Amino acid sequence: MATKKIKELPVILVTNDDSISAPGIKALVEAVQDLGRVVVVAPDKPQSGMGHAITIGHPLRLHKVEFMEGVEAYTCSGTPVDCVKLAVDKVLHRKPDICLSGINHGANHSINVIYSGTMSAAIEAAIESIPAVGFSLLDYSVNADFTAAKIYVRKIVEQMLKGKLKKHFTLNVNIPAVDASLVKGIKICRQAYAKYEEAFIERKDPHGKMYYWLTGEFVNFDKGKDTDVWALANNYVSVVPIQFDMTNYELKTSLETDWNL
Amino acid sequence: MATKKIKELPVILVTNDDSISAPGIKALVEAVQDLGRVVVVAPDKPQSGMGHAITIGHPLRLHKVEFMEGVEAYTCSGTPVDCVKLAVDKVLHRKPDICLSGINHGANHSINVIYSGTMSAAIEAAIESIPAVGFSLLDYSVNADFTAAKIYVRKIVEQMLKGKLKKHFTLNVNIPAVDASLVKGIKICRQAYAKYEEAFIERKDPHGKMYYWLTGEFVNFDKGKDTDVWALANNYVSVVPIQFDMTNYELKTSLETDWNL
Repeated sequence: MATKKIKELPVILVTNDDSISAPGIKALVEAVQDLGRVVVVAPDKPQSGMGHAITIGHPLRLHKVEFMEGVEAYTCSGTPVDCVKLAVDKVLHRKPDICLSGINHGANHSINVIYSGTMSAAIEAAIESIPAVGFSLLDYSVNADFTAAKIYVRKIVEQMLKGKLKKHFTLNVNIPAVDASLVKGIKICRQAYAKYEEAFIERKDPHGKMYYWLTGEFVNFDKGKDTDVWALANNYVSVVPIQFDMTNYELKTSLETDWNL
Repeated sequence: MATKKIKELPVILVTNDDSISAPGIKALVEAVQDLGRVVVVAPDKPQSGMGHAITIGHPLRLHKVEFMEGVEAYTCSGTPVDCVKLAVDKVLHRKPDICLSGINHGANHSINVIYSGTMSAAIEAAIESIPAVGFSLLDYSVNADFTAAKIYVRKIVEQMLKGKLKKHFTLNVNIPAVDASLVKGIKICRQAYAKYEEAFIERKDPHGKMYYWLTGEFVNFDKGKDTDVWALANNYVSVVPIQFDMTNYELKTSLETDWNL
């Protein structure tokens, strides 16, 4: 009987980019643990900024680990995207019903969706026709307070599990770093054109040779009130529906008429 | 006089993901060398499949190297995206007029645009408001014949330099691996929904522990005749205009009406 019941529960694959040791992934599992059979496959070390990288030049390792009572968990030596691929092929041997990634320590709004390992894991799942969400809290700290985030994770996952989702359903969810009582609710948004303006810091090593650290200042070039950056600045949880078709259809039309090739 | 003339030429930043040693990047420079002041900043080692990864956990190195008569060239220890960022901030100290990435050894059509370091470098340039193109030849071989590719690279870059381009102009160009005489021309396309279906190969190391190699079979789920996969299969050069706004506007509208959050 117990086995049968477990089989009927939706399978929820959980991953992230901050590694299995990050408090954010524990918060995510705690928020949804009773909604399905949760299986964790997460990187064995931090993989922030890995974007949609995959490991092709060397092989991957997969290890079963202790994580949380009643939750099957594995570490993978690769990127967040590798975690999703390995989870489907070698851990679950099937597609999970949904895939959740995060909760990331730090923002993944605006252009960050492209650099983020957290979001790339969710997008990879969506490419595989697994509905997916990436969650991020606007607090980089290892001691970040996930109370508000957990409330909204649960709200969104419950809504997802209610009905039939589109095949490539993907959301980028960011949660403001404020007390739960101050969060005004959820706003469905578009991705802002806001980005880091790079300034590399130059240093000299003990042998007199230069090296460069990537740093930058975040700049919002997008004054729209329908963006994720606006929503977060106004204490809303931002939800940006994501696609992986990168075709610029507007530019396609203009090239078809204007270019002579 | 000579200095003045050089200053008036468009600055063309060239990068790739196969590293500065790959024949493809030499073919790219040869194709456009007389059209502007070409500056190469490319990875010092292969970076295929790195997607939009950036290096944040450790610093980067940049080295001036010999490359080709009359061409300023540098290697960077990071990813293709790092190359573009470092080139703008620490090599050129300005935005180049255009950025070219490739010529990649191997296809970057359909969903591969998301995994490709070659395309991510071009997309990074576009995010920085630098018009950019990624070029790929459908031949993984180090001995690939770039004759046809060079003809089409030149055609496209000449067209780009003719007029004013949109700020975030980006193209994903793939060239079929056939003799130049068999290429039927250029098709402006959309990105196909075609992807690798993963099958990890399991092996045991000498200590009895498992490891996994990522492999896969390419499957085209998209029967459209307006896709890059169709164009290439029919001996056309495929040109897919690319955007970095990942918002799924259709899903946004449906969530705004259907979801109760």
